[in-house]
Amino acid sequence: MQHKHRWEGAHIKEFGMWSYTESENAWGAADAPRGALASRVLAMPTDTNPKGDIFGGWIMSMMDMAGKMSATTVANGRVVTVAVDSIVFRQPVKVGDVVCCYTDIVRVGRSSITLSIEVWAMRQGQGDRLKVTDATFTFVAVDDDGRPRPLPARN
Amino acid sequence: MQHKHRWEGAHIKEFGMWSYTESENAWGAADAPRGALASRVLAMPTDTNPKGDIFGGWIMSMMDMAGKMSATTVANGRVVTVAVDSIVFRQPVKVGDVVCCYTDIVRVGRSSITLSIEVWAMRQGQGDRLKVTDATFTFVAVDDDGRPRPLPARN
Amino acid sequence: MQHKHRWEGAHIKEFGMWSYTESENAWGAADAPRGALASRVLAMPTDTNPKGDIFGGWIMSMMDMAGKMSATTVANGRVVTVAVDSIVFRQPVKVGDVVCCYTDIVRVGRSSITLSIEVWAMRQGQGDRLKVTDATFTFVAVDDDGRPRPLPARN
Amino acid sequence: MQHKHRWEGAHIKEFGMWSYTESENAWGAADAPRGALASRVLAMPTDTNPKGDIFGGWIMSMMDMAGKMSATTVANGRVVTVAVDSIVFRQPVKVGDVVCCYTDIVRVGRSSITLSIEVWAMRQGQGDRLKVTDATFTFVAVDDDGRPRPLPARN
Amino acid sequence: MQHKHRWEGAHIKEFGMWSYTESENAWGAADAPRGALASRVLAMPTDTNPKGDIFGGWIMSMMDMAGKMSATTVANGRVVTVAVDSIVFRQPVKVGDVVCCYTDIVRVGRSSITLSIEVWAMRQGQGDRLKVTDATFTFVAVDDDGRPRPLPARN
Amino acid sequence: MQHKHRWEGAHIKEFGMWSYTESENAWGAADAPRGALASRVLAMPTDTNPKGDIFGGWIMSMMDMAGKMSATTVANGRVVTVAVDSIVFRQPVKVGDVVCCYTDIVRVGRSSITLSIEVWAMRQGQGDRLKVTDATFTFVAVDDDGRPRPLPARN
Repeated sequence: MQHKHRWEGAHIKEFGMWSYTESENAWGAADAPRGALASRVLAMPTDTNPKGDIFGGWIMSMMDMAGKMSATTVANGRVVTVAVDSIVFRQPVKVGDVVCCYTDIVRVGRSSITLSIEVWAMRQGQGDRLKVTDATFTFVAVDDDGRPRPLPARN
Repeated sequence: MQHKHRWEGAHIKEFGMWSYTESENAWGAADAPRGALASRVLAMPTDTNPKGDIFGGWIMSMMDMAGKMSATTVANGRVVTVAVDSIVFRQPVKVGDVVCCYTDIVRVGRSSITLSIEVWAMRQGQGDRLKVTDATFTFVAVDDDGRPRPLPARN
Repeated sequence: MQHKHRWEGAHIKEFGMWSYTESENAWGAADAPRGALASRVLAMPTDTNPKGDIFGGWIMSMMDMAGKMSATTVANGRVVTVAVDSIVFRQPVKVGDVVCCYTDIVRVGRSSITLSIEVWAMRQGQGDRLKVTDATFTFVAVDDDGRPRPLPARN
Repeated sequence: MQHKHRWEGAHIKEFGMWSYTESENAWGAADAPRGALASRVLAMPTDTNPKGDIFGGWIMSMMDMAGKMSATTVANGRVVTVAVDSIVFRQPVKVGDVVCCYTDIVRVGRSSITLSIEVWAMRQGQGDRLKVTDATFTFVAVDDDGRPRPLPARN
Repeated sequence: MQHKHRWEGAHIKEFGMWSYTESENAWGAADAPRGALASRVLAMPTDTNPKGDIFGGWIMSMMDMAGKMSATTVANGRVVTVAVDSIVFRQPVKVGDVVCCYTDIVRVGRSSITLSIEVWAMRQGQGDRLKVTDATFTFVAVDDDGRPRPLPARN
Repeated sequence: MQHKHRWEGAHIKEFGMWSYTESENAWGAADAPRGALASRVLAMPTDTNPKGDIFGGWIMSMMDMAGKMSATTVANGRVVTVAVDSIVFRQPVKVGDVVCCYTDIVRVGRSSITLSIEVWAMRQGQGDRLKVTDATFTFVAVDDDGRPRPLPARN
């Protein structure tokens, strides 16, 4: 489980960026988001944690809704979230940031759809996008009784 | 990546339980929660998803807050969420359920604390507890500027 | 004031569509949204009115935030909403709909930016987009003390 | 469209008041609200925008609910919001202000009711009322299927 | 402690009214509210409890805010809630009801203000007002450091 | 009515503690909570009042939910809140505090259950628990039509 150790090694170095200095901007800017834009919202004061940054639970909620919107299209109907892996919170989200979720299909099974979800922020709605969080979400297509159903054939 | 395949094999069988029948009760009842009670709340209508069950984002928020409360005690001060792994949504949470989060320390590094977090529900506040979701959260102790700081020595 | 009478004439006929039948789909589908995508979210049960549809106040909030995100980019900094005109609620928004706001610049003054904002919905996240609401919002660029400031020169 | 130009002329002058100085108090105090009190609430921190003032979407929501309460009485039953015109945000609303909405009937059609809605604030619950926002809302009486219905005869 | 026994005697009879039948209307209609209107809002779906009625916590919040608005005027400045007594929930509040809080001064001490607060509802915004809840709230005027301060002299 | 006078006498002295100094810690620390833990949550910025402390309405909501969870177990099914007495707000709750509600059965009637509910806070999730609020809540067991029903026999 490689990613468990990361926090004690190289990743702690990345952590210097959490203090939200100019070096932060250097970090994610080179990258482009993976996948298609699934949600875009403005981060509001009601979504903050006691520290004053945007609450991690809100970010996970945004990812869940973004993934659900994308998976619903693939599934041609209702889906439920069954698993989430490898959420990495890379940088804080601030009140006033424009927050975008990008989703990309990683794997499609008989009933399940696994998506890469990346969250990017524009600080105060301006400048370069920064990758702030990413994760892998798995959804399963369900019928009206909540039982898994096969995904529609794709062509 | 063992857990990616699970949904296509044995786990889909578990999925029959999502329809919330009596077999559901048989499922998790044998187990006892791992760790200590970190949060306990009543699931309310404002927290539902379009399907009418409790929104997955709300459940992840509960876990984040539960983990943060536990990690704060270990860290003797402020922590931030840096990673989440292996969230498995095993059963839906319903409006009116009593929802409990249990946390258990998995690993303590120089600055980081990794917790197992389990969410258990009592259907409509009665009967046996059922494990509905579990995950692994990693927090890092930070100083006032948001930079990682060493954890206090433990004895 | 042409638009005041509209509701008593032709528009009441449109109103047959509020009952959310298949004819509804015929209505807006021909059109394409005007402008660029500024926000995209999932409509949730917490945002409903007593009738069970999505609350008009929530829709206006979405438009305000979408407009603010777009105007901030034009203004290269903080803006405040100073006026809204001609909001027309054409069709209800339902829980589970994917709701998109599109913004288009109508007029740029010395300090003010007027945007056309259209709200489109995909019923339950599937099928054609329908225009559900549109409006004109005016924002003014402000400095740190909340006083109007000139917009940056555009080229 | 007279009101579009307003922001570039005389109204920008009014904008000096947005900085919330004592001149602000001189502004609206002379006026009395038009119409009857339809709602009265305390502005709370959860309703703020990133700038720290009360979010415009919240103010529009208050107006929508105030208008809906008044129109319901006229319509003797359910109404839906179909149009909003001429919202002017004259002054910011602050956390801790007492916020009142006043509604006045402008026009009654066969199915529709048009109301003038004014929002007045008492800063921190004390002193003179200030008009902070006004607008015109149009509601249509609907039956259980959401179709327009004639308003009851008035005497 | 007279009011403890009430529930086992006469009050249980009143409880037949909780099933929201026509007899309900007979109950409170004769009374007029005590005091002045301090708040007026529309009860929304987001404020429901698992049973589908409006959550008691929301009603208590409305009372607290209504009392705070009234006490602030008396105190000519900031107040804090220090005690609540004798809340009686007489009838449920329903989604779509217009909810009004009336406050009346019961007692004014050196620093404290005790108010009677009554909550009345108009079912779906129509018909007679019904008293749904009442209580006694005590507030204390505080200075900027949160310490009790004497109330201004009254004439 | 002993408790009405309290605020003008000895209790005002207690009020020096509202300014949240070290003497505060001396106050409640000696006590242990009465009853069993019924709810445990993290106080978030979205729950603040205009003064920046946690809103009293939120604290009462927490108590109502905690009491409802406990009473549901005793009643072996649905309960409604019918009365609340003697809420005393002893100390403010701060953003970031861990907030616990403890419930203890005071009296069980034919249909009603009266609970002592105490709210204790750990400042920023650390150190000793402080009693911040307490109250007495009465619930009545109801059937599906909302009518009082006898409590199950206890042994």
